[in-house]
Amino acid sequence: MTEECKITMNTGLRGVTVASTRVSDVDGDAGKLIYRGYLVKDLAENASFEEVVFLLLYERMPNLQELASFKKALVSEMPIPREIIAALKTRPRDSLPMDILQAGVAMLANHDPDIRIEGEREATLRMGIRLIAKMPTLLAAWSRICTGQDAVPPSRDLGHAANFLYMMTGRVPDDEITGFFDACLVLHAEHSFNASTFAAREVASTRAHMYAAVGAAVGSLSGALHGGANTRVMQMLKVIDSVDNIDAYIEKQLTGGGLIMGLGHAVYKVDDPRALILAPMSKKMGERIGEVKWYEISRRLEEKAKAAFKRRKNMDIYVNVDFYSASLYYAMGIAMDLFTPVFAISRIAGWATHVLEEQYADAAPKPMLYRPESEYIGDYCGPAECAWEPIERR
Amino acid sequence: MTEECKITMNTGLRGVTVASTRVSDVDGDAGKLIYRGYLVKDLAENASFEEVVFLLLYERMPNLQELASFKKALVSEMPIPREIIAALKTRPRDSLPMDILQAGVAMLANHDPDIRIEGEREATLRMGIRLIAKMPTLLAAWSRICTGQDAVPPSRDLGHAANFLYMMTGRVPDDEITGFFDACLVLHAEHSFNASTFAAREVASTRAHMYAAVGAAVGSLSGALHGGANTRVMQMLKVIDSVDNIDAYIEKQLTGGGLIMGLGHAVYKVDDPRALILAPMSKKMGERIGEVKWYEISRRLEEKAKAAFKRRKNMDIYVNVDFYSASLYYAMGIAMDLFTPVFAISRIAGWATHVLEEQYADAAPKPMLYRPESEYIGDYCGPAECAWEPIERR
Repeated sequence: MTEECKITMNTGLRGVTVASTRVSDVDGDAGKLIYRGYLVKDLAENASFEEVVFLLLYERMPNLQELASFKKALVSEMPIPREIIAALKTRPRDSLPMDILQAGVAMLANHDPDIRIEGEREATLRMGIRLIAKMPTLLAAWSRICTGQDAVPPSRDLGHAANFLYMMTGRVPDDEITGFFDACLVLHAEHSFNASTFAAREVASTRAHMYAAVGAAVGSLSGALHGGANTRVMQMLKVIDSVDNIDAYIEKQLTGGGLIMGLGHAVYKVDDPRALILAPMSKKMGERIGEVKWYEISRRLEEKAKAAFKRRKNMDIYVNVDFYSASLYYAMGIAMDLFTPVFAISRIAGWATHVLEEQYADAAPKPMLYRPESEYIGDYCGPAECAWEPIERR
Repeated sequence: MTEECKITMNTGLRGVTVASTRVSDVDGDAGKLIYRGYLVKDLAENASFEEVVFLLLYERMPNLQELASFKKALVSEMPIPREIIAALKTRPRDSLPMDILQAGVAMLANHDPDIRIEGEREATLRMGIRLIAKMPTLLAAWSRICTGQDAVPPSRDLGHAANFLYMMTGRVPDDEITGFFDACLVLHAEHSFNASTFAAREVASTRAHMYAAVGAAVGSLSGALHGGANTRVMQMLKVIDSVDNIDAYIEKQLTGGGLIMGLGHAVYKVDDPRALILAPMSKKMGERIGEVKWYEISRRLEEKAKAAFKRRKNMDIYVNVDFYSASLYYAMGIAMDLFTPVFAISRIAGWATHVLEEQYADAAPKPMLYRPESEYIGDYCGPAECAWEPIERR
């Protein structure tokens, strides 16, 4: 369990192994993502989000009866208290949805009957399941309240993916869209120690409760370098607007030192396995609505940017999960500023699982409170401490 | 900037230097705490909280005129929007105050005019100043709303410390209590890469905004192993209830493997320099209200616990910041469940400063997104990946 390593400061712990986990494995060289032993590709093609949540939380795939009863439990936890709706109605309509989600998660804690129970795995698990169930309801409610519409309560007759789309639009979605959205939820559910999950674990390591940890994760996911990237991919596609403008856009970014959103990843050294599944869905969804433009720009941009980076910088660059989810969500009619919150209502499955592992892992040694060191480079009074000087003499 | 190190997994990065900082230095062996070159002892004895906030944010001590204008700026930012009061009124009265604070911080973001500005240091600084100003108002408002009283708006004529006590009680505090509380704010303002500050920096490293980062820090501070400890010290004192019961309590904890709250620290190997300043304040405050009991229990508990750990475990153990702040806050009439939020309305100064450093440090290398590695120890299907099995066959 001990290894030699080289830490270079201010490099964000890149390449530093901080903990052991049984939740998932990202093999960046092989382009493989595994949830509890299962390839994400197999899960996205075959399993529902509820099935994957069961796998993450209970460490095995459910049988038919177990899945049916888990789905029932989950949907029964979907409604949110009317006091939460009242709180949402006090919020300015132009609030950033990720801020609403962070506040909403913390407010859901106020209504959780287990909130004062400390150190009990089963209570923490129940809180996790409630958050997985209620976050889509919270987000869908806000998506309507911020446009002056009434919130639509969840339907007992719909699964998790369909229920979110139903609560957002007020219409029951058909099987194709539901299937696409379900696959998106599966693909975004878990990704080992990414920044938001690490934030959740960091907070959980202080023995703070599930909601406090998830609130932190929502904050982390909102960042432009993390979950916020999917919205920015779509903004970029809008700026490019036509396949004819791709060359000029790449040129401008390459010479100006700018980024091309959705390209590059901290871990993957090949195409992100999730992007390979999202791309054809984006194409199909574009065809379905008769607007393949955004998919086409994405596809050509990927091709041309890869070639340009190779030619100009001798760099191999790869698409990440955000690259094709942007055009896919857009084609599904999801508002651009909801892309990142939609990521969150999936990743909550991973966050909840990691909080449980952080606080209740069986394996010794138990995780300890995260409390790193820093090197003080303040040189305000040279190497000595500053002498106190009364304010009148300054 | 590169050093060899030994990482032992699941040990919370203890002893691992992750970043450089100019904000503060904790010398755990010498029992020294330095904010931007100045000993915390000098600051607590001579400077107001506003002066220390200026030092943290602007990297130097203000002169008379600068301090006057900073105080004015800070107090002008203290009021919170009436929509926030409306939101607080939707919350169940028995909500945990730290959950209210986490939600409240995220909701304050909804009203910040700079919230959609990205990557501008000055905008981030303004957000930090607003949070430093508004968090006491938010907490004081909740402390009244949860007991069915109306919120008291801040007074333009009072300083930061006095204003909080005034908004909480509705009465202008005298100079002695104000001085004690001001010193508490100074002592809790900053402590390098503790768990909540690390959480704030972790979130800020994704380029999430100030409020998202501070919301994460509030979540982290709520944990029993972090800021939550000060409430638990008071709960412990209540359980002990008399100096006569101290021996039996220590015996029970030592044999049962329990902790004695407020003893021990991740960094200090001597008495916490903050505790040395808090202890005499706790005594004076106890004398003032004619109830020295809680101070006396604390003092004797410290003495006896130190001796017992030495005798029984050959361990030197030291008091930390939470040990005497508990009896001090209690004597000041602060409700026990507000101890940790009161910690937060001080530490926000450090959090805001660290977010600025994380996102805008001049020194190369610039901090990178925190994204550590984990070791996958899942063995669900042995060393191979699990083969997909349709649900009917499970």
